[in-house]
Amino acid sequence: HRMDARSMWLYRLYYSNTCQWTLSLTIFLILLLAFIETPSSLTSTADVRFRSAPWDPPCGLTESVEALCLLVFVADVSVKSYLVGWAQFRKNPWLLAYLAVLVVSLADWIVSLSLLCQEPLRIRRLFRPFFLMQNSSMMKKTLKCIRSSLPEMASVVLLLALHLCVFTMLGMLLFTGEKQDDGQDRERLTYFRNLPEALTSLLVLLTTANNPDVMTPAYSKNRAYAIFFIVFTLIGSLFLMNLLTAIIYNQFRGYLMKSFQTSLFRRRLGARAAYEVLSSMSTRGEAHPRGVGVDPQDFLQVLQRVQLDSHQKPVIMEKVRSYGGDLLSAEEFQKLFNEFDKRVIKERPPRPEYRSPFLRSAQFLFSHRYFDYLGNLIALGNLVSISVFLVFDADVLPGDRDDFVLGILNCVFILYYVLELLLKAFALGLRGYLSYSSNVFDGLLTVVLLVLEISTLAVYRFPHPGWKPEMLGLLSLWDMARLVNMFIVFRFLRIIPSMKLMALVASTILDLIKNMRAFGGILVVVYYVFAILGINLFRGVVVAPGNGSLAPDNSSAPCGSFEQLEYWANNFDDFAAALITLWNVMVVNNWQVFLDAYRRFSGPWSKMYFVLWWLVSSVIWVNLFLALILENFLHKWDRRAHLQSLAGDPDTCCQ
Amino acid sequence: HRMDARSMWLYRLYYSNTCQWTLSLTIFLILLLAFIETPSSLTSTADVRFRSAPWDPPCGLTESVEALCLLVFVADVSVKSYLVGWAQFRKNPWLLAYLAVLVVSLADWIVSLSLLCQEPLRIRRLFRPFFLMQNSSMMKKTLKCIRSSLPEMASVVLLLALHLCVFTMLGMLLFTGEKQDDGQDRERLTYFRNLPEALTSLLVLLTTANNPDVMTPAYSKNRAYAIFFIVFTLIGSLFLMNLLTAIIYNQFRGYLMKSFQTSLFRRRLGARAAYEVLSSMSTRGEAHPRGVGVDPQDFLQVLQRVQLDSHQKPVIMEKVRSYGGDLLSAEEFQKLFNEFDKRVIKERPPRPEYRSPFLRSAQFLFSHRYFDYLGNLIALGNLVSISVFLVFDADVLPGDRDDFVLGILNCVFILYYVLELLLKAFALGLRGYLSYSSNVFDGLLTVVLLVLEISTLAVYRFPHPGWKPEMLGLLSLWDMARLVNMFIVFRFLRIIPSMKLMALVASTILDLIKNMRAFGGILVVVYYVFAILGINLFRGVVVAPGNGSLAPDNSSAPCGSFEQLEYWANNFDDFAAALITLWNVMVVNNWQVFLDAYRRFSGPWSKMYFVLWWLVSSVIWVNLFLALILENFLHKWDRRAHLQSLAGDPDTCCQ
Repeated sequence: HRMDARSMWLYRLYYSNTCQWTLSLTIFLILLLAFIETPSSLTSTADVRFRSAPWDPPCGLTESVEALCLLVFVADVSVKSYLVGWAQFRKNPWLLAYLAVLVVSLADWIVSLSLLCQEPLRIRRLFRPFFLMQNSSMMKKTLKCIRSSLPEMASVVLLLALHLCVFTMLGMLLFTGEKQDDGQDRERLTYFRNLPEALTSLLVLLTTANNPDVMTPAYSKNRAYAIFFIVFTLIGSLFLMNLLTAIIYNQFRGYLMKSFQTSLFRRRLGARAAYEVLSSMSTRGEAHPRGVGVDPQDFLQVLQRVQLDSHQKPVIMEKVRSYGGDLLSAEEFQKLFNEFDKRVIKERPPRPEYRSPFLRSAQFLFSHRYFDYLGNLIALGNLVSISVFLVFDADVLPGDRDDFVLGILNCVFILYYVLELLLKAFALGLRGYLSYSSNVFDGLLTVVLLVLEISTLAVYRFPHPGWKPEMLGLLSLWDMARLVNMFIVFRFLRIIPSMKLMALVASTILDLIKNMRAFGGILVVVYYVFAILGINLFRGVVVAPGNGSLAPDNSSAPCGSFEQLEYWANNFDDFAAALITLWNVMVVNNWQVFLDAYRRFSGPWSKMYFVLWWLVSSVIWVNLFLALILENFLHKWDRRAHLQSLAGDPDTCCQ
Repeated sequence: HRMDARSMWLYRLYYSNTCQWTLSLTIFLILLLAFIETPSSLTSTADVRFRSAPWDPPCGLTESVEALCLLVFVADVSVKSYLVGWAQFRKNPWLLAYLAVLVVSLADWIVSLSLLCQEPLRIRRLFRPFFLMQNSSMMKKTLKCIRSSLPEMASVVLLLALHLCVFTMLGMLLFTGEKQDDGQDRERLTYFRNLPEALTSLLVLLTTANNPDVMTPAYSKNRAYAIFFIVFTLIGSLFLMNLLTAIIYNQFRGYLMKSFQTSLFRRRLGARAAYEVLSSMSTRGEAHPRGVGVDPQDFLQVLQRVQLDSHQKPVIMEKVRSYGGDLLSAEEFQKLFNEFDKRVIKERPPRPEYRSPFLRSAQFLFSHRYFDYLGNLIALGNLVSISVFLVFDADVLPGDRDDFVLGILNCVFILYYVLELLLKAFALGLRGYLSYSSNVFDGLLTVVLLVLEISTLAVYRFPHPGWKPEMLGLLSLWDMARLVNMFIVFRFLRIIPSMKLMALVASTILDLIKNMRAFGGILVVVYYVFAILGINLFRGVVVAPGNGSLAPDNSSAPCGSFEQLEYWANNFDDFAAALITLWNVMVVNNWQVFLDAYRRFSGPWSKMYFVLWWLVSSVIWVNLFLALILENFLHKWDRRAHLQSLAGDPDTCCQ
């Protein structure tokens, strides 16, 4: 690393918030381009039967945005390599790969422009997620972790493959029916006709996606055949798949704890280095009689110029001042930084003080938690009233419904919510009210509800019996009423923090979301790469029935086929549609329908793509996600148990 | 506990192997009765269309077996309660429940006989799994563990229910299509018609069993509707369900370690108590000059009479003798018992020694591990030849196949296996050969293959071109050939221990099977109770089409319904069929078909049964199983890492 003054200035500039934000925005922008580029996703539906012609961006529009993004990346890589220095640069595979990807992208971009955007293949689209990956150190770390668990995962996958092969052979030997029109023979014809089909059937059974169907013909003939399928599922799906989970979790065990310790260690190291620098400065200026140490005045000057959390800065500065003119020793210096670890207890603004005793008792009443409970109860009542009307209206045609009573009820409830908002603001003061995040959520929804209700009343007048929906303006009355009701449903979520256990679980989930940015990033990368690959492989393969398509007409399609189930929207014709298709394959249910349809439309090799996607997404990523949840929950649990045991209340588990 | 001589004698008798085996056998027998009792499972198929009338056991046959079993249990409970004593008996809920269950069972049995086995309901069948449960202390412990994790599980389940309710309301508000023949309206009519149907649709979506179908009508209309379903699945299926796994695993963490420590502690306590008894005995006999301690002679006498592992007993006795006539101190006494922890390295019997140098070099050759590898290679070649023939024969009708070449090849391979068996037995000696369990497995399969091949040759003569299958005796030639080939597939499994990583994974699975008896027992209990309940609720509800059944004819049934998918064998008409039906619901895929069919055949309340079974089996038990696998794997991994770090080879994980 370079250490001279200009490099330091560049270093500060590069790691300033503005620069980092610009970089993140650029990455976001270049990834977003996939939705707009030539197979653009700007149609209301992805269904090949109803889809209108998508908007085709003029040549040069997306390309110019891309060029801007690539220029930012060029600046990024040059600054980074300058700061790191040539010797380090040669050794850093990530930086080298960054450079290579940029060169390839720029070359591809020039080819693209020179062919007037009519080129058959855009390689640079495949490389775009790399920019996201190289920008996050967490993602690199996670990737390293995954790579280190590959050998064990490979052994389990090998065992799975062996299991699959052995059972395929057994199955094919078992279901070589000799008589026609026999259950055994039907099983053979449907699922074990030849080796690839038998393998596919059992691979799908491994994901349990064709569970009762695959055994039905044989099991209808004889009970004993069920044993074959049950043993297969037990070994494959329960033992081996869960073993894979265990292996992945094993690698991530202590992951959070270690990263926590590493960051603590780094901060200690930084503080110590700062201490050395400051103490050498203070001794250089004057020979201090009282040994080596940091002069609090120097430290305060540094603190003034440093960016810190607005809550913690004054606390630390006050502490430093309390030392007076004494030099700070290394230990005292370290202790100052412990302030960062202390959870800041946010101070609520003081409540407004009223003089009149009536106002005071009203304030006590409306700031009491029972008043919150009453609000929850009323939200529940509102929800119940909506669901009662939903149940009553379920069998009435939408045109014949009468919304008079529900309209009145909603009006009353919304009035109560507004009243509650005002009373709470009166009791806690406006700033006090806004200091609770739950109140902000409530207040926002109340305001939205009020606006919606007022506009409803303005357009359609006050509800009267036989109130009928009319189409006026942008939204019909019905849409308006539905919107109002939906916001009430969201308002109901405020009861969650009132229940202790649910609050714990909900807070775990919130923590999880914070910790899973790296995992989310990997998911984005994987989805992006596979979606682009899928578009290149299968674009235009699914053709609407009736227009010279390979697909038979809907009425004649066999049950359970792509055509009968009307999965027409699950295609790879644009980026958004590809994402949804990949999601549906990742969820695994009915993926044999996709396998079969793309085999027919595109060829037998399409199976490779789907099986690879299944392995990457459903087998590896979902297990990673489970490992992350386990790690987060256990980390949180252990910390809580530790705190409880400190409070002298040990929690004994079963033994 | 009673301590007098007669009680001790009874105690020994009760815990003798014979008594415990009798008890286990009785439990097994009474559980097995469910297959034979009146809705007996002794038909070749469970399909209501093809099923013959089941065998009806005469009244008194199963009842007399049951009476015998119950008498054994009466003896068991009386011995147990006598040994425990009245004071303890009153405090022990398991013993009290045992007594109550026995009384109810006997009363029900008398009622049953007095009604000549025509009683409408047999309560005692529901209670039978209790006998299994109370006999296993591990199962009681596991049950306790599950019970202690119920509060947290309840909170997650509550959150799940809230999530389901909120999204059901949102969905119903979203899909109240105003126009006919609109995607929104089709969604409403198919999945969100009324509150119960919407709830069911989303509950099934929580298990991902109707994933692309439920979103298809709306998603075909507009892409944005997919977000609703994806968010629902993300929160419900990925976050909340995995959180449930984390909570269950959290309870079982350290489960194995703790039970291991407890058993070690108990053994130490027992050894210490034995030391006290023995030392008091030796001091009582004569005032020993050298202080307190155990006389080795006394100890040897005791050891002679104690049942111990045949390998460990001589080792300990030799150690005791090495102390000579000195008294054993408490520490020395404890050390003796450490012998139990040492893994016994099984001594192989010595190889036979041959005089002739030719025989010696042959012995070296055939006992070398490369000879094993050759055998594996040849088994692989055999497997490949079979699969090649399977691929070639796939499109040929079974009647037209020619098995000449495969028959010859199989003959040659089997001859090689026999030769290998003989050569290995020659090189290692017969006892040495049998001391390897892999050899026993190989040898057994070889013998079976040889017998099958000889009988094939005897019945059908030597294969000649145009060899055709004939039906002679019990098995046709085809069945025989299939059996031979299947055994060869099993023989192929011997390659697993040759691959290091796969051997680790396979040994984890084997360890797991040892540790999961308690979990398997709970699974048996749960399946038994639900199967009996299901038989009582749904017996005879599924009626074959055409015989006045509620079900429409197959050709007119809509796609994806019970009738179209021909799930006729999935009924509750007998115990075996009920087990398979429950398995299919536990695997979760397509369970909406069962929900829908039983709603139509039996009434809307049947959903409760299936949802409850889903919760118990798929949500709780499968997660328990995953927790067990995690626990086992991590336990094994940590022990291995510990051993490796002792060997000075620390394994660093990612950080």
